[in-house]
Amino acid sequence: MNGQIDVIDVKSEILEDNGIEGDKVRAYMKEKGTYLVNLMSSPGSGKTTTLVNVIKALKDEFRIGIVEADVDSDVDARTVTEAGARAVQLHTGGSCHLDAIMAKEGLEKLDTGNLDLVIVENVGNLVCPAEFDIGANKRVVILSVPEGDDKPLKYPLMFSVADAVIINKMDTLPYFDFDMERFKKNLAEKNGRNVPVFPVSALSGEGMKAFTDWLTGEVHQTLHHS
Amino acid sequence: MNGQIDVIDVKSEILEDNGIEGDKVRAYMKEKGTYLVNLMSSPGSGKTTTLVNVIKALKDEFRIGIVEADVDSDVDARTVTEAGARAVQLHTGGSCHLDAIMAKEGLEKLDTGNLDLVIVENVGNLVCPAEFDIGANKRVVILSVPEGDDKPLKYPLMFSVADAVIINKMDTLPYFDFDMERFKKNLAEKNGRNVPVFPVSALSGEGMKAFTDWLTGEVHQTLHHS
Repeated sequence: MNGQIDVIDVKSEILEDNGIEGDKVRAYMKEKGTYLVNLMSSPGSGKTTTLVNVIKALKDEFRIGIVEADVDSDVDARTVTEAGARAVQLHTGGSCHLDAIMAKEGLEKLDTGNLDLVIVENVGNLVCPAEFDIGANKRVVILSVPEGDDKPLKYPLMFSVADAVIINKMDTLPYFDFDMERFKKNLAEKNGRNVPVFPVSALSGEGMKAFTDWLTGEVHQTLHHS
Repeated sequence: MNGQIDVIDVKSEILEDNGIEGDKVRAYMKEKGTYLVNLMSSPGSGKTTTLVNVIKALKDEFRIGIVEADVDSDVDARTVTEAGARAVQLHTGGSCHLDAIMAKEGLEKLDTGNLDLVIVENVGNLVCPAEFDIGANKRVVILSVPEGDDKPLKYPLMFSVADAVIINKMDTLPYFDFDMERFKKNLAEKNGRNVPVFPVSALSGEGMKAFTDWLTGEVHQTLHHS
């Protein structure tokens, strides 16, 4: 019974043409003078805790808005609001991602023109959100140590579109078989752009400064050169 | 800027009618005398390691087949084949779930008639796979401790369709803020069927016997009473 693996390619999903709508959001944000980040990860990787860190670190430097996308619930919007950001909660009604049209609804509601930096916390998912260009300046992917260093190989699209990767829960490294060099090798296999990798513990805040410094630089560079 | 949360229901996804196809798979499996499990979780929750435990524990009792569904790669199919099961690898070509038609392709390829128990390892995702009835006898959901005890609230459909929940990586409990009683309360809020919860460490094998005993009972009961 062993040794035999059949591989079947069952289906190629036909995606709607989301690129044009993404371009519209990009133009809209450029006009408003607002930098947009699309933050993606699995459920439970620490997107919200990371956001709380970013808000606390940068709220004096930038006017920050958050678009929370969830299948249901508004737990995360409450958390980031308490941290000091203006937040809009989007319910995707069962859908596993945000598309650009949904994102634009949230951005308009946020009153983007009065904000410097907006971060969209996408639905917790390593598959669908990767397929949709919501018009962000940068796509940031969080992977947490417990998920394993092989994830770029298993979710190649997500890691190929990432402009930066945060490795969260670094404080739990002793308890998991996660090898940072192996991760970087796997990432490089799917992403040839040599994107920055930020090892952090969102819980303790350790390592977050390198990420917020990078983000600050990106925001300044983009807003002042456009 | 604080205190204000706007909630927008952006979209209700229109699902294809997958129920009829699920019924067809159920009829097919009943005719073959094979029990079918749909195993679902986030990426990196330990589906494959759990499967290896199940195969090793039950391979003398049942003829076991595995359908591995992945966006890409065949890493998992190799792993379970080495553990002693016959495996088929399905590539979903970017799709975030299996539907019943895809599952049936895999089941036919497995030569299901010569198997007692088939487990489908679905795509790592807490959203989409919950929406599709692939005709399984039971839906088993794995949640790992690092993901957090709030996941039933954030991914309600997945936890409402679950017939059993495995809590994996119990050996890491000291390092995370995961409260089992809080999890059970959250689960009960979304799932009123009082489904069994199995705390395990798939890495050490601890707790797995309770799950494999439950599964053995379910398989015997179904195959001998149908």
